[in-house]
Amino acid sequence: MKKLVAEFIGTLWLVLGGCGSAVLAAAYPELGIGFVGVALAFGLTVLTMAYAIGHISGCHLNPAVSIGLWMGGRFEKKELLPYIIAQVLGGIAGAGILYLIASGKPGFELGGFAANGYGEHSPGGYGLVAALVTEIVMTFMFLIIILGATHSKAAQGFAGLAIGLGLTLIHLISIPVTNTSVNPARSTSQALFVGDWAIGQLWLFWVAPILGALLAGLVYKFISPEKE
Amino acid sequence: MKKLVAEFIGTLWLVLGGCGSAVLAAAYPELGIGFVGVALAFGLTVLTMAYAIGHISGCHLNPAVSIGLWMGGRFEKKELLPYIIAQVLGGIAGAGILYLIASGKPGFELGGFAANGYGEHSPGGYGLVAALVTEIVMTFMFLIIILGATHSKAAQGFAGLAIGLGLTLIHLISIPVTNTSVNPARSTSQALFVGDWAIGQLWLFWVAPILGALLAGLVYKFISPEKE
Amino acid sequence: MKKLVAEFIGTLWLVLGGCGSAVLAAAYPELGIGFVGVALAFGLTVLTMAYAIGHISGCHLNPAVSIGLWMGGRFEKKELLPYIIAQVLGGIAGAGILYLIASGKPGFELGGFAANGYGEHSPGGYGLVAALVTEIVMTFMFLIIILGATHSKAAQGFAGLAIGLGLTLIHLISIPVTNTSVNPARSTSQALFVGDWAIGQLWLFWVAPILGALLAGLVYKFISPEKE
Amino acid sequence: MKKLVAEFIGTLWLVLGGCGSAVLAAAYPELGIGFVGVALAFGLTVLTMAYAIGHISGCHLNPAVSIGLWMGGRFEKKELLPYIIAQVLGGIAGAGILYLIASGKPGFELGGFAANGYGEHSPGGYGLVAALVTEIVMTFMFLIIILGATHSKAAQGFAGLAIGLGLTLIHLISIPVTNTSVNPARSTSQALFVGDWAIGQLWLFWVAPILGALLAGLVYKFISPEKE
Repeated sequence: MKKLVAEFIGTLWLVLGGCGSAVLAAAYPELGIGFVGVALAFGLTVLTMAYAIGHISGCHLNPAVSIGLWMGGRFEKKELLPYIIAQVLGGIAGAGILYLIASGKPGFELGGFAANGYGEHSPGGYGLVAALVTEIVMTFMFLIIILGATHSKAAQGFAGLAIGLGLTLIHLISIPVTNTSVNPARSTSQALFVGDWAIGQLWLFWVAPILGALLAGLVYKFISPEKE
Repeated sequence: MKKLVAEFIGTLWLVLGGCGSAVLAAAYPELGIGFVGVALAFGLTVLTMAYAIGHISGCHLNPAVSIGLWMGGRFEKKELLPYIIAQVLGGIAGAGILYLIASGKPGFELGGFAANGYGEHSPGGYGLVAALVTEIVMTFMFLIIILGATHSKAAQGFAGLAIGLGLTLIHLISIPVTNTSVNPARSTSQALFVGDWAIGQLWLFWVAPILGALLAGLVYKFISPEKE
Repeated sequence: MKKLVAEFIGTLWLVLGGCGSAVLAAAYPELGIGFVGVALAFGLTVLTMAYAIGHISGCHLNPAVSIGLWMGGRFEKKELLPYIIAQVLGGIAGAGILYLIASGKPGFELGGFAANGYGEHSPGGYGLVAALVTEIVMTFMFLIIILGATHSKAAQGFAGLAIGLGLTLIHLISIPVTNTSVNPARSTSQALFVGDWAIGQLWLFWVAPILGALLAGLVYKFISPEKE
Repeated sequence: MKKLVAEFIGTLWLVLGGCGSAVLAAAYPELGIGFVGVALAFGLTVLTMAYAIGHISGCHLNPAVSIGLWMGGRFEKKELLPYIIAQVLGGIAGAGILYLIASGKPGFELGGFAANGYGEHSPGGYGLVAALVTEIVMTFMFLIIILGATHSKAAQGFAGLAIGLGLTLIHLISIPVTNTSVNPARSTSQALFVGDWAIGQLWLFWVAPILGALLAGLVYKFISPEKE
């Protein structure tokens, strides 16, 4: 139960911090933080939670991460469903708090609310294939980083740093393509508030990250040092 | 006494560095650092002091942090008042040095002096409720990061990194809402120089951070591993 | 073989992440990440891989690094050629994935594709001598950082951080001069897609980094503490 | 002798990297790195060298740092002069390489060459008193960070991170005031190339940093834990 509360709070923070920086601060006139600031914010939600709750729940905050860790032999199958439910609920709670804050500005309009999309809903207008490839490959590499940096032969203590900054890197590359998901819980939370097209495109942000994560679990088993 | 001098110097640095970057460098024409630079500066004041004076005073630099640590069972009640006084005085000293530097520019006007505010004094015009929610939630999460990253089961040595970058993250999200406080000492120091509306709104930047910190102290006790 | 797969994946990530951030996100209207974001992205590819695969292959991701480590007495001569081949192939794979994504945007034009160049193909118009000096000196310093931070007397665990952020620093300085290579595999992968002038200028981005790396191997032997 | 070569190379890197990013990349049209990028670059020169040569020479790279460490009881008086000479020569070498690269751009003009100044040579037009206060206080805090983070009771290994990012922070605050020195060797190297006013104002960038460093040495002795 402690683990699930930790995953709930952590995913709340990922959505509130990452999507919040995008909605509230990215396009502020003159002084706004832009995509660099949003990329940094997403990464720092994971970095901060890794050190704060990593010793409680492992700090997955992401159904694709839980599934990839299971495929890589690092996570119990029976814990998958409860973790994913806690992550999705946490994400929705984070989006709710963000909505409450954002709507406190006179003239507030929901807009994209940092939801993920492709085609006409891609920030840069990238099509379905580009979006699929991006989400699969980015989640694949995210899981390679996670599986590698938490391996017993990796430098101890630095995993939270590498994983958090890895998520920053992924956003630096791919915000223009899909607004960057690599996380079905994050995508779901925003899609529920935007509705309409965001719900219609939500399938891709479950399918592609999970595919990428499963693939990474397989590949990492092959390249990892024998003794765990 | 050594502890109090350390808290005084550290909070001086937090205000001089964080508010100083905002006042002196954020809006510099063309090359200015914007909110990203200010967010980084606030976080780095805490990161640098965590490693420099953490072993002396614990490096709170913030009345809400001291109160949250007390609620979480990590800080003695009898030390609360001296710490808070040292923090407020250090913040005022930092603001004084910043005033001395900033007024050395011909045509200097005090303006907002990086004070915190809501409603018409919020950078983005966010109302009272949005400001309250923001300051409570951001301080809540700040204390979750602090309580978690300094727990004996967390990776040793990394707390200063996680906590400092956590403050950066909080600023990346919330500068447009309240100019970001989560720290009554920081808010007080700037309000004293601005006077007027900043004094009138100062109550929120004591009440909300302390509420958030107390709540985090309670919640963390529930999710933390049993053995400290 | 595991080592070579790791070098392949790592160099794929360096090119996809570094060049990808440049091609996809650097010049995005209003919110683009600029050279700061590209510099951060290149560095974070190395930082993330250092912790993910450092314990597998050493995480060179760069023929100049492998050669410099050999000159510094830290890498076997017989492993040089397989490593370099894996790195070049990984870089090409990364460029291929990037091409697939980038071409998914309507109206896509290849342009410079983040290839390296001098003279009229230098971003800032810098001539041949400036380009040569830049690539030699930057690779020299990159190898000094690598040889020093991985020395047995250096603080353990931090090498990935120092080396990754060292690559960020090198990009902060030198993108305007050559688009920054210091890595023949990275240059080759982009030149193959651009063809023409990029192939014609590719020699410099093999010769200069390797010269700088060899020089660093010699110098570091002189300044390093006697006992390895 | 190894120590002096290490200080020479390190200070060369500080000037080439920090001033180089300012001269070559800060004001690049549209994509330039601005003061945020320059601040990051200066900090990363120190961070990278701290892990690369810290175990050789201690990585001072700055006469004010050597003097402050001596005042704090951490450095031998007899080593002061050789260190300072190596630092100044290294800085000049770095400025020379930067000049060679920068002048490779058609239409190059030397301009300020990132030299430090006050009054009409302050980037933001700040006067003499503001410049003096800034350089004294910033160097004071830089030495507090250095003395604290390298104390035997501080978390081991993190000093290079805290000190490097501390220099980033100092630049985030004070580039608009003096172009940020806190380092007489860095100021001297640029002033020699600019001549004229930069030589005339150079005294301040020796006097103020050294004063700040001496003061920090005294204060830290008072607040540091008794047992070293």
